[in-house]
Amino acid sequence: MARASLKVRIATLLTDFGTNGPYAAAMKGAILRRYPLARLVDISHDIPAHDVLTAAFVLAQAAPQFPPGTVHVVVVDPGVGTQRRIMAATFGEQTFLFPDNGVITFVAETMPLERIVVVRNTKYLPPADPSATFHGRDIFAPIAGHVLGGVDIDRLGPQPETYKLLEVPTPAVQGDALVGQVIYVDTFGNLVSNITDNALVQTHPALDRVRVFCAGRDVGPLQGAYGFVDQGRPLAIVNSMGRIEVAINRGRACDALDAGLGTEIRVQEAKSA
Amino acid sequence: MARASLKVRIATLLTDFGTNGPYAAAMKGAILRRYPLARLVDISHDIPAHDVLTAAFVLAQAAPQFPPGTVHVVVVDPGVGTQRRIMAATFGEQTFLFPDNGVITFVAETMPLERIVVVRNTKYLPPADPSATFHGRDIFAPIAGHVLGGVDIDRLGPQPETYKLLEVPTPAVQGDALVGQVIYVDTFGNLVSNITDNALVQTHPALDRVRVFCAGRDVGPLQGAYGFVDQGRPLAIVNSMGRIEVAINRGRACDALDAGLGTEIRVQEAKSA
Amino acid sequence: MARASLKVRIATLLTDFGTNGPYAAAMKGAILRRYPLARLVDISHDIPAHDVLTAAFVLAQAAPQFPPGTVHVVVVDPGVGTQRRIMAATFGEQTFLFPDNGVITFVAETMPLERIVVVRNTKYLPPADPSATFHGRDIFAPIAGHVLGGVDIDRLGPQPETYKLLEVPTPAVQGDALVGQVIYVDTFGNLVSNITDNALVQTHPALDRVRVFCAGRDVGPLQGAYGFVDQGRPLAIVNSMGRIEVAINRGRACDALDAGLGTEIRVQEAKSA
Repeated sequence: MARASLKVRIATLLTDFGTNGPYAAAMKGAILRRYPLARLVDISHDIPAHDVLTAAFVLAQAAPQFPPGTVHVVVVDPGVGTQRRIMAATFGEQTFLFPDNGVITFVAETMPLERIVVVRNTKYLPPADPSATFHGRDIFAPIAGHVLGGVDIDRLGPQPETYKLLEVPTPAVQGDALVGQVIYVDTFGNLVSNITDNALVQTHPALDRVRVFCAGRDVGPLQGAYGFVDQGRPLAIVNSMGRIEVAINRGRACDALDAGLGTEIRVQEAKSA
Repeated sequence: MARASLKVRIATLLTDFGTNGPYAAAMKGAILRRYPLARLVDISHDIPAHDVLTAAFVLAQAAPQFPPGTVHVVVVDPGVGTQRRIMAATFGEQTFLFPDNGVITFVAETMPLERIVVVRNTKYLPPADPSATFHGRDIFAPIAGHVLGGVDIDRLGPQPETYKLLEVPTPAVQGDALVGQVIYVDTFGNLVSNITDNALVQTHPALDRVRVFCAGRDVGPLQGAYGFVDQGRPLAIVNSMGRIEVAINRGRACDALDAGLGTEIRVQEAKSA
Repeated sequence: MARASLKVRIATLLTDFGTNGPYAAAMKGAILRRYPLARLVDISHDIPAHDVLTAAFVLAQAAPQFPPGTVHVVVVDPGVGTQRRIMAATFGEQTFLFPDNGVITFVAETMPLERIVVVRNTKYLPPADPSATFHGRDIFAPIAGHVLGGVDIDRLGPQPETYKLLEVPTPAVQGDALVGQVIYVDTFGNLVSNITDNALVQTHPALDRVRVFCAGRDVGPLQGAYGFVDQGRPLAIVNSMGRIEVAINRGRACDALDAGLGTEIRVQEAKSA
């Protein structure tokens, strides 16, 4: 009877565990032991250690692509073993398990919150003492097993009054410019800014007439593809996240432009003549 | 009715997206959203950025091992957003989706081409504008969803007159030697040459009487295993790809011999006495 | 008929193949070609090349988490192509395929051995000559296919008289101290020792009254969580493996304490006053 309700469900993992040790695999095993039909997909295990902001960004880029009903298990958790809370939430039609440290920030900005609870119901927590250092295996995995098995997150604990969100810098209007900064450097060295095309079009409706500056350096108008400038040349582009990005065609902008997190990205009207 | 035809199908991914960011996972989600029963297997996401030659080599080593019917999705695609074409092809009994930049070169050399088309039929392309920077998510993934769901690649577009192949150096006979070069350095630092045992046996039928030279240095006869020489010593061997390889037993030949892509590998008859 | 017995079974892979080349994927394809319903889970492909001790440690941490019936395929195998034996064994309710080089050491210490055989039965070995360099693809994968398909490991070959175990240093009592050493440095730079809490409690029943020294430096009592000391400060903790571990809160102990494999970890009674 119970088995008849088992079905294939997707669970993703996002951690800073790396892939050279046992932690990611131990967590996968612990999920599969509880729910053998889980279809596990790695979002990443290579988030820089303890880097909640990067994890928040990566999560919000990847999660919305998955099918409804996916369970995302996020363990970038420098507060493991302290009194930090573990949360379960539904955004869009997807479920997230995560430590209450702000890692949900960008998901909360872009996907509609449906429900959120503090995981506290001892009925669903593991009976044995968890380790002090590995709640991914000892708490998140068992809870994920329950959720994959159909336990409604409302049963995991009470609604919180608030939950933690990171303070993320927002772009500002300065004269005729919109001024933001780099908030993510991707694997290609591309510089992703906090300026979205939606925000930019409010101040600069004619996107084909803007110029972009990276740390004061003119990198030209918005291009239609990386390959529209010569190899090795810088460019600006609206990227796949709908954000203004500064890149080098077939190169690494972070190195070539000596730029990184916090570097100023300025968009202003192109001067005529 | 439609659901009755859904079945588990294997899709592999080969990209230069890295594993520390959202791109590989976003692409996986986008495939699973279209075809939830896809069984996703990573070939690699750690191809050096924009390195079409390495991707071509890795693809040809891994793909033939998979079961018939596997769909290989290849997105090492520095021309993303330009007019470069996207291709779908069947080699052997396997299907490949790839940008027309030569990444199919070694597969085309070793597996029989059955069909190839340019992906152009708007019926199967996503209705919305794709991003300029991430066709893996916005075009390859939806097309992969259709192919996994049973759409014949003939329906994706017309046959091309030609498709791009990389120019790869071939070994040359010089006196009594066959002279090639290193075309791939593997994860262990082993130096893989463009000399196959099939080619070598044409010029040197007695493989047990050859000697191999790496950048002029004598590394001895062909050995039967890495462990047949002392630890730290160089050797030559016919590797798992049927290619002459120069290695160091339990060491890194690329470092120890200061060799890499393009280094000369020479095979000649052993001098007697 | 035969197909009716096919079912989803989990196979894990633990190798030093890296993820930037074709080897791990070729081995996955070779397993899937034999047993398409295999559910493949990576333990790791990023074991340092030829590092049997690290592989042994990682295997023993991850494997016990998996469901009964899981097949673990371990190919950290510097002796590939030599006369080293390939073994199949059942520990607990899990099956392991591995080269007889000691990689099973920590599993054998912590999980009950049920059966072990030398893989030698030509009925189950591949008919063609395997390559000299890639038994993961050419021998381990076909054998894994048979085991996943239900072949009992007893049929793979005879029981060995012995099998190889690594010599691992054990902690020693010195005066009122238990003195061990670092045997694993994890992905966060945490220093994992060979002192288990089970061993420690034999010599120091009051765990709340010990102090831990790393290379002679006092890192304090056993803490309940990393976050119980200030950021950047060292601490000792009983980790998720039940081992005494020295860490830095949100830092890398291996770097900050200039410590690594072999570094002395000393636990002694706290001095009063």
